Amino acid sequence: MRDVVEIGMGKTARRGYHLDDLALVPSRRTRGSADVSITWQIDAHRFELPLMAAPSDAVISPTTAAVVDKLGGLAVLNGEGLWTRYEDPEPVLAEHGDIAAGDPIATALRVRELYAQPVRPELLAERIEHVRSTGARTAVRLSPQNTLVFANTAIDAGVDVLVIQGTVISAEHVAVGREPLNLKTFIADLDVPVVVGGCGNYQTALHLMRTGAAGVVVGYGAHRGSTTHAILGIDVPLATALADAAAARRDYLDETGGRYVHLIAYGDIRTGGDAAKAIACGADAVMLGEPLAAAAEAPCPGWYWDPSVSHPKLPRSWLHRTLDEDEAGPPLAELLVGPTADASGERNIFGALRRAMAKCGYSSVKEFQKVELTAARWVPPPSGC
Amino acid sequence: MRDVVEIGMGKTARRGYHLDDLALVPSRRTRGSADVSITWQIDAHRFELPLMAAPSDAVISPTTAAVVDKLGGLAVLNGEGLWTRYEDPEPVLAEHGDIAAGDPIATALRVRELYAQPVRPELLAERIEHVRSTGARTAVRLSPQNTLVFANTAIDAGVDVLVIQGTVISAEHVAVGREPLNLKTFIADLDVPVVVGGCGNYQTALHLMRTGAAGVVVGYGAHRGSTTHAILGIDVPLATALADAAAARRDYLDETGGRYVHLIAYGDIRTGGDAAKAIACGADAVMLGEPLAAAAEAPCPGWYWDPSVSHPKLPRSWLHRTLDEDEAGPPLAELLVGPTADASGERNIFGALRRAMAKCGYSSVKEFQKVELTAARWVPPPSGC
Amino acid sequence: MRDVVEIGMGKTARRGYHLDDLALVPSRRTRGSADVSITWQIDAHRFELPLMAAPSDAVISPTTAAVVDKLGGLAVLNGEGLWTRYEDPEPVLAEHGDIAAGDPIATALRVRELYAQPVRPELLAERIEHVRSTGARTAVRLSPQNTLVFANTAIDAGVDVLVIQGTVISAEHVAVGREPLNLKTFIADLDVPVVVGGCGNYQTALHLMRTGAAGVVVGYGAHRGSTTHAILGIDVPLATALADAAAARRDYLDETGGRYVHLIAYGDIRTGGDAAKAIACGADAVMLGEPLAAAAEAPCPGWYWDPSVSHPKLPRSWLHRTLDEDEAGPPLAELLVGPTADASGERNIFGALRRAMAKCGYSSVKEFQKVELTAARWVPPPSGC
Amino acid sequence: MRDVVEIGMGKTARRGYHLDDLALVPSRRTRGSADVSITWQIDAHRFELPLMAAPSDAVISPTTAAVVDKLGGLAVLNGEGLWTRYEDPEPVLAEHGDIAAGDPIATALRVRELYAQPVRPELLAERIEHVRSTGARTAVRLSPQNTLVFANTAIDAGVDVLVIQGTVISAEHVAVGREPLNLKTFIADLDVPVVVGGCGNYQTALHLMRTGAAGVVVGYGAHRGSTTHAILGIDVPLATALADAAAARRDYLDETGGRYVHLIAYGDIRTGGDAAKAIACGADAVMLGEPLAAAAEAPCPGWYWDPSVSHPKLPRSWLHRTLDEDEAGPPLAELLVGPTADASGERNIFGALRRAMAKCGYSSVKEFQKVELTAARWVPPPSGC
Repeated sequence: MRDVVEIGMGKTARRGYHLDDLALVPSRRTRGSADVSITWQIDAHRFELPLMAAPSDAVISPTTAAVVDKLGGLAVLNGEGLWTRYEDPEPVLAEHGDIAAGDPIATALRVRELYAQPVRPELLAERIEHVRSTGARTAVRLSPQNTLVFANTAIDAGVDVLVIQGTVISAEHVAVGREPLNLKTFIADLDVPVVVGGCGNYQTALHLMRTGAAGVVVGYGAHRGSTTHAILGIDVPLATALADAAAARRDYLDETGGRYVHLIAYGDIRTGGDAAKAIACGADAVMLGEPLAAAAEAPCPGWYWDPSVSHPKLPRSWLHRTLDEDEAGPPLAELLVGPTADASGERNIFGALRRAMAKCGYSSVKEFQKVELTAARWVPPPSGC
Repeated sequence: MRDVVEIGMGKTARRGYHLDDLALVPSRRTRGSADVSITWQIDAHRFELPLMAAPSDAVISPTTAAVVDKLGGLAVLNGEGLWTRYEDPEPVLAEHGDIAAGDPIATALRVRELYAQPVRPELLAERIEHVRSTGARTAVRLSPQNTLVFANTAIDAGVDVLVIQGTVISAEHVAVGREPLNLKTFIADLDVPVVVGGCGNYQTALHLMRTGAAGVVVGYGAHRGSTTHAILGIDVPLATALADAAAARRDYLDETGGRYVHLIAYGDIRTGGDAAKAIACGADAVMLGEPLAAAAEAPCPGWYWDPSVSHPKLPRSWLHRTLDEDEAGPPLAELLVGPTADASGERNIFGALRRAMAKCGYSSVKEFQKVELTAARWVPPPSGC
Repeated sequence: MRDVVEIGMGKTARRGYHLDDLALVPSRRTRGSADVSITWQIDAHRFELPLMAAPSDAVISPTTAAVVDKLGGLAVLNGEGLWTRYEDPEPVLAEHGDIAAGDPIATALRVRELYAQPVRPELLAERIEHVRSTGARTAVRLSPQNTLVFANTAIDAGVDVLVIQGTVISAEHVAVGREPLNLKTFIADLDVPVVVGGCGNYQTALHLMRTGAAGVVVGYGAHRGSTTHAILGIDVPLATALADAAAARRDYLDETGGRYVHLIAYGDIRTGGDAAKAIACGADAVMLGEPLAAAAEAPCPGWYWDPSVSHPKLPRSWLHRTLDEDEAGPPLAELLVGPTADASGERNIFGALRRAMAKCGYSSVKEFQKVELTAARWVPPPSGC
Repeated sequence: MRDVVEIGMGKTARRGYHLDDLALVPSRRTRGSADVSITWQIDAHRFELPLMAAPSDAVISPTTAAVVDKLGGLAVLNGEGLWTRYEDPEPVLAEHGDIAAGDPIATALRVRELYAQPVRPELLAERIEHVRSTGARTAVRLSPQNTLVFANTAIDAGVDVLVIQGTVISAEHVAVGREPLNLKTFIADLDVPVVVGGCGNYQTALHLMRTGAAGVVVGYGAHRGSTTHAILGIDVPLATALADAAAARRDYLDETGGRYVHLIAYGDIRTGGDAAKAIACGADAVMLGEPLAAAAEAPCPGWYWDPSVSHPKLPRSWLHRTLDEDEAGPPLAELLVGPTADASGERNIFGALRRAMAKCGYSSVKEFQKVELTAARWVPPPSGC
């Protein structure tokens, strides 16, 4: 019974659901939250939290990568961001905060300029080594276009997880007159686990799984400043995309006799409730960018942007505020694992996830993928006070 | 014909409805409102109004409990609130009004501190005796965690109805290394009627009925300041939850050969129209908190909060205003039974219920559960003037 | 294929549609608007416009009744309003405008007081005779409760159409110890045509048709200040109510071998587009109140209220503004038949109806009831400039 | 499986979809955007962009027509606009900007007056010749009422494409006592290709195709200032209208053994994403008005209006702002083909279309009509910064 609507004569569309369209339904059993495990294991790596911190320069520096590791998550450094373009990116990051308070288009032009500096492989290696030197695990994100250029540098420097990520990618990129990245042969030759994405439907997810990736990113990282839907008409209702990717995983498990590929949900996740719903739809972990940009330790506290902001011809997001002017951000620890006195849901995200699982009677992330859902009209929460 | 949607391949969700999604449909007969009875009888207790006043310190003190009794409802004192933690809670309540006007997070931190005082059994007994001394009936709410600790004190002090209530509870709580409350054996041994909740689905409602409870609370008391959906991803579309619980009641009636368990609707009920729709979905009575916090007699007039606001790690609601600054609240009598000159629906709630039943041609609450409903797009009412 | 949703287990609701949920679909033919007739004939009376002006003191005085007649509609005087309670209601009407600008509850209290004066039969007769003396036709509205008291006075004074109207009425009112109005025997004895209402479903509409009424009002006159849905939980999605009443009309036509009862749509109609959609759902005419309150000739220009505002215990609407302060209202002629330079849709309402019919290729109101409809997400129109 | 809802007993409506209700779903393949072609060929004319610039005096003057041609689109001059009513319309256009900042009704009255000047055939000829003299192709729009009066003048002056366009037209216009335009015989006699519209359903589209038109406009050009839905109750959910017209095209292809009629989508298209979705529903090209009114070269920069604003009795749109006061508009080139630093989606519209196609794996407009769609709840994009 597929949920298909007729747009017009002979033209149909499948109905898609956002996380906001859904809610969890607690069932007959409840649990103590201390008895719930939210650990996540991908390949040989075990994490206290089912978390990847998104490869945004507004969130992950070598320093914050170490903090995220300590708190239990896996931070992803943007391999093509400011830290690999500038010897000392601190003044450049500080400038982001300054210019962003002005006219958005002037800001975008300046950001584009700042990102026009070339990526320097030696800086990439240096950043990875810096994180490793703290004892933390490191992940680095490369774009599909530049993976062949920089991957070896990253691997040689000891990266633990390689993330190949564009807004929307496929396992079959067609480009006349250029040799595209063949993910399948590329990944087969690597020793480090690879996470690829983003994607938004069954078929792409299945093809990406067949590349040998350890994890697939589902969603394109939609946040309060992103305009991809308006600009391109493309959108990924995340609940539907995750459920479809989970179906692909089941089929791939069957086809391979047991190879399990992790799904990392990315976009529209701001609270523990959002994370819980993503898992309910099939995710194994969540990738968080914008929600961490308010942290006191963030490279440019109170501002968030993703790599698309610096596109030379058609940026698909705005650099935007995540704190009020003069508002001090909470420590990353409060955002991720609490405690907090903030009732908005944007802090103690994983404490909230743990409680959601407890109240629904589940004790592990994998089990929680079976929790019951209801689809009801979304009622926005109060804004606070 | 279940109302199920396909979220994605192999993943479904049941559609849920809020009270706001529905409206009553008057049918071929109308009645005079004087001919309508809205009395409510649970166990040996008969009330003029189908009303439980919610166990919020912002609404129920020993004094307001007596007023609610006089007006025809059953007030529930929070057995773990300020009145059982402080010899004299009046200054503490006054401080709530003062601090709440400031920064919401600072407020939450201070409220948490104020609630950190231990509950004193002798104060619990004293409060109950105080209410009884006015000739009023008393109900006390205990959390499932503390029921075994305080229930005997409450019963010995002469409580008429015991309310065991958490946001979301179940008849089967699993907690490693701790002995959970066994509701079934606990209730079987008691002489006073017990009301338990909240719950939000058929199975939990049925299990809670099987504990021997006289009433089950459906819903978690959502109000304008609650953020449970955002924080945990859990929501209870109340119309659906009530209809499901009513189905559980029918099955339980059959299974027991006639034991009728009352359903008390709690959350998103602000007007007589909301109460009428809750009954239409299967409720026997409504629990009101926030709508009574504006009363002139309220302990901290113009402010509302529920017990979750003082959670030490993850509060799930804000302390919020229910009156404009310097606005005087109406007497509780006007809010509950009128008359009023206010057309917002938030006053004369039970006069409105009575008229709704009359215009639809019904003369008792039980009969009114059969009234016809329509599901239409919600159009918000005008804000007044 | 009924459009029914499952609210919860064993509980269903029928889906209801507002006019705003629908749009007209022009089909293969278009017409010149000069070739379209929008005349309306009910009983022996023929009108240039399919219009009844609602019995609100904010709209209809003996003077404006004559203006409405001249422009082609039928004005309904409120037989229990200010004009039949006061020898000279002008100062009272002026006071409405003054007090209404203040606190809404104080306003409601004062309005209640002003309406507490008793209705005087001799004034009712005088008002009717005044309107007749201008050569205009007269209609008068009485409440079901007072119809037996005042109807003879109105008929003796020469009323052309009698309107028996309450918010929600039925052909079978049950009131213990009081003799209710028996519409059937009452109407059978009268020589003047009777319009009755409001109603909102098939069964009530059918029963009201069987009383011998010439017309049935569908809807309860919802306007921007009415709060009936919030207060009582009752709502009448007008498109559905009209379609159901039209089905009742077909069945009644069959059962009587040809007696045609007119449907007058009342509520949520502000523009010619709304009127066109009401007709598309089955209406023969529309009753307009609030949209005419902005007229320069209105008794209290820029303010609107309906009779429910003066209820002694539970008013179900607010007295509210329809013009900005110091804004001058357009003549009634511009509102009804244009021309206008206002693009909001709130002026030249019947010129717009005529054009809508022309663009859809229809030439009479009765034919236009067959126009094709589409149900799409409502997009609010721009607010002007 | 038609998507039909029951409004009420015996009354149905077909569900209609706006472009905003839909999103594109990228599938298993992606492409480089340089490999995508968005050229458009209608009759003998080939364009770099699938674009007709709408016949609004706020957008197209002889000068901007040439700029649009240079950038790759086809500009349509309003044959009954200011440029054919005034020898020198520049002061009149300037006055539009001045008066529009004032009271909207006074503005509408003045605009009506300015448009009351008669159309002068010699000016029509002159304007066409002016555009041709720049080497650009010319299209002219005439209303159905005046087509017979002015078409020969336009053709003799060398117009390349004739556009016969009213808000809603049909191939069968009925007007008592007047000889209507017979599109079929009229078009058969012409040597220039004709585009006709707007229309909104299968049957009208099919009949318009049978007139011999080269293209059919689908939609009535809804923009932020248009109020047609409110005024007339008529609306054209564009996604549904395009899909239905595409079905008509398939049937007409079959009936003629291969005559392909182009569909031009008009209304609610503001971004490349909107254009992409229109094509996904069946369009071959888009007609843009309001989005181009912000251009620095626009005749009255920052203001938009369509011909309906000057209607003598019932205007159906407002003259409205498209730029903030003192905001400078970007060049037309940035709006159409970029590059841009604006992330709103309103600039580099066709660069965005090209990227949308690339990310979905398609290389031509015709192929792209097959892209997969999802129907999800619309989430409005951020407003910028």
